[in-house]
Amino acid sequence: MEFHYPNGKKFKPATTVEKTKKTKAKDFTYSNRGMTLEEDLNETNKYYLQSEIAVIHKKPTPVQIVNVDYPKRSAAVIKEAYFKQASTTDYNGVYKGKYIDFEAKETRFKTSFPLNNFHKHQIEHIKQVLNQNGIAFVILRFSSIEEVYFLEGKHLLSLWNRMEEGGRKSITISEVQEYGHRILLGFRPRIDYIKIIDKLYNLS
Amino acid sequence: MEFHYPNGKKFKPATTVEKTKKTKAKDFTYSNRGMTLEEDLNETNKYYLQSEIAVIHKKPTPVQIVNVDYPKRSAAVIKEAYFKQASTTDYNGVYKGKYIDFEAKETRFKTSFPLNNFHKHQIEHIKQVLNQNGIAFVILRFSSIEEVYFLEGKHLLSLWNRMEEGGRKSITISEVQEYGHRILLGFRPRIDYIKIIDKLYNLS
Repeated sequence: MEFHYPNGKKFKPATTVEKTKKTKAKDFTYSNRGMTLEEDLNETNKYYLQSEIAVIHKKPTPVQIVNVDYPKRSAAVIKEAYFKQASTTDYNGVYKGKYIDFEAKETRFKTSFPLNNFHKHQIEHIKQVLNQNGIAFVILRFSSIEEVYFLEGKHLLSLWNRMEEGGRKSITISEVQEYGHRILLGFRPRIDYIKIIDKLYNLS
Repeated sequence: MEFHYPNGKKFKPATTVEKTKKTKAKDFTYSNRGMTLEEDLNETNKYYLQSEIAVIHKKPTPVQIVNVDYPKRSAAVIKEAYFKQASTTDYNGVYKGKYIDFEAKETRFKTSFPLNNFHKHQIEHIKQVLNQNGIAFVILRFSSIEEVYFLEGKHLLSLWNRMEEGGRKSITISEVQEYGHRILLGFRPRIDYIKIIDKLYNLS
């Protein structure tokens, strides 16, 4: 199935609903390059895996399954299920023996990054990982200005604490620039966050 | 809803289909204690988390979502989805900065553990993790004799290779005993695999 919208854009049937949601979001945030942050990170992780640089995967979306059909001679069909809130961050894996853990979020705002992009569970998880000497961080994208930053978990935690103590509910772009590390987009890998890890933790 | 079967056992309505499947399997394999291997490991990981010993989680079951309903004023309902094959193992996390990764499987056989309990993808993943100096292993339960073993990834890989070169398609129990480490079931934690890691990798 293929037809053209009045604006000349092709319609492509989405293979999954998640896909559909991303495609919609893309129209607002990431139109120039046609890739979402998640797609860029998946490509990056694939590159790391194939080049034997690191083994990092995105966790599956957690789903509460309620009802499944088992038709004869074909695959089981889930007929009723609900999205569950994740209890951890989305990405984790191993690099040079070290545990790596991160969450990736984007905003359309230009001057600040709202902290409500994160759930309390995720903040708690980042704290637990840091207590175990794991490497935890977030990747923040300001999609309207095309800037991507690596922000260490410890900084996110203290900015979150500031909010909990009654302070501002977002991180200003100048704070992101001061505490974080800009990642310039590349071809392969697209978002080279391992380079930042090497620098910060002396692993190279 | 609660009623009794003729055998005096209580019927408990399952909350999820996965739950139903486990309950069925349990009748054959793990009836004395009334817990599946997965439940025991979830309890163990919860204990490790609460005691700040380690941060290890089970990954969500991967599902391909095809169709979602968004009813007004209530949660989105997934109306059509399919189970996908996992590309990694089920459990991972961090212990003292080190990356921990494992898969857990049980068999009703008494004298050998069939290798078809593992997928090629998982074997490949274990290999990748070991190449990155991560700690990868499997937890094997012989449910009919109530014995649980920790087998390091490197041993699983060589036994898998033997099969691929035309050798036997299972690991004999004496091989498991020779290369693996028995874990005696405890109260808290139930399956103390961290103790084995401490011993093998000198982390305590």
